[in-house]
Amino acid sequence: MNEHDTDMIFGRNSVREAMRSGREIDVVYVQENAEKNLSEIISLARKKGIPVKQVPKNKLDQMLRFNDPSGNINHQGIAVRVARVEYASIEDAERLAEEKGEPLFLIALDGIEDPRNLGAIVRSAEIFGAHGVIITKRKSAGMTGLAAKTASGAEEYIPVIKVSNLAATIDEIKKKGVFVAAADMGGQSLDKTDLTGAMMLVIGSEGEGISRLVRDKADFIVSIDMYGHVESLNASVAAAILMYEKKRQDRRK
Amino acid sequence: MNEHDTDMIFGRNSVREAMRSGREIDVVYVQENAEKNLSEIISLARKKGIPVKQVPKNKLDQMLRFNDPSGNINHQGIAVRVARVEYASIEDAERLAEEKGEPLFLIALDGIEDPRNLGAIVRSAEIFGAHGVIITKRKSAGMTGLAAKTASGAEEYIPVIKVSNLAATIDEIKKKGVFVAAADMGGQSLDKTDLTGAMMLVIGSEGEGISRLVRDKADFIVSIDMYGHVESLNASVAAAILMYEKKRQDRRK
Repeated sequence: MNEHDTDMIFGRNSVREAMRSGREIDVVYVQENAEKNLSEIISLARKKGIPVKQVPKNKLDQMLRFNDPSGNINHQGIAVRVARVEYASIEDAERLAEEKGEPLFLIALDGIEDPRNLGAIVRSAEIFGAHGVIITKRKSAGMTGLAAKTASGAEEYIPVIKVSNLAATIDEIKKKGVFVAAADMGGQSLDKTDLTGAMMLVIGSEGEGISRLVRDKADFIVSIDMYGHVESLNASVAAAILMYEKKRQDRRK
Repeated sequence: MNEHDTDMIFGRNSVREAMRSGREIDVVYVQENAEKNLSEIISLARKKGIPVKQVPKNKLDQMLRFNDPSGNINHQGIAVRVARVEYASIEDAERLAEEKGEPLFLIALDGIEDPRNLGAIVRSAEIFGAHGVIITKRKSAGMTGLAAKTASGAEEYIPVIKVSNLAATIDEIKKKGVFVAAADMGGQSLDKTDLTGAMMLVIGSEGEGISRLVRDKADFIVSIDMYGHVESLNASVAAAILMYEKKRQDRRK
């Protein structure tokens, strides 16, 4: 991973959420002549004693290029340099569940490589009240740059946990009495499966789905009923539908 | 709109679907030295008598730059030049519903500007068996370039309809006995709303939601229950959850 990947947050919403969450911010970069649309964030930074530096647009573009080699960064004139992303632990997720008095609800991603998909899934997971999102060290986007931008700041509120071996993590989680449902072709209908209570939902990668080992370890395989010619939903869409269905069932119970 | 926007389809899945659907294709561009991964498509093109041209990677990149000014086009070595996108009509959607013997099911987008969101919504709509996706002439991405790539070829199977005035279209649709449900804040819980039968689901734009006039014309406003701090789901995620819930209810009925 590129070092630059891990310590810049950009875009108005993401920067605002990073500031509000109390995360440690080293410096705020504001595009020259864009100050007037960013006055709320600038005054928040000044109140917190964070240095604010004005930079030309091309400088800001260049600083963020490492996030996306295409240079297509919609930073909206604002970026902050933050302390390196710190991933959380399963214990952090368990603590959050306890605080809320809810059975543990986790999302695990078996190799989501598209940072936009990762960001969208973290955003949905926070919205649907999951207590943590587990990603893998290999074959996975990190919670930085474009992923953080797409997450709209959700990663400040939900633990994102990086594990080396998802299959081992599933074993560990199952020992705690959490059921594991993996989304894949050929499973039982999502809405005919009981998803209430302590649950981990596993989503596969965009191209290859879930790995064999993970599939074997899951308590059940669930499928979203489909009616068309196109063979698979976007990974972030499928993930959100699983979360929606789980919460719908929890509420009805 | 840029002319170049409207007549290139790229990426392996999208090109394959465009070919299979019988759409008129003028020429196939294949990246030099990438032929061996594309043999299936190349032989399909030859069988159909479509000229196949080999071009260097940088030429292909450049041809597709108009789709995304960042130049970040993952064309996978393949692109085709097709006849200009032809949008469908409401009658095409009605015909599809009749052929399938189903009550009319439409998705209407009130100003989705992000082509990736548009493409993802068309893909979900096709998968969930909608009979048409209505987009607006103004303030909307077109069904081209990046949108077509994200749709994974779904637009070949589902009518995409462009209208000048969505409010007028809603009036027209309601006269046919179709109920109109618009997604917005402060509505009734999605899963407590009867979505069965002939139905049009309206999704608002990423930033501004649905417009006032459209909101007023809807039969009811529905909201997805949310449990976190982040205020809104990604538009393509919200759209897919509405479609999923509609089909879930249809099946249970």
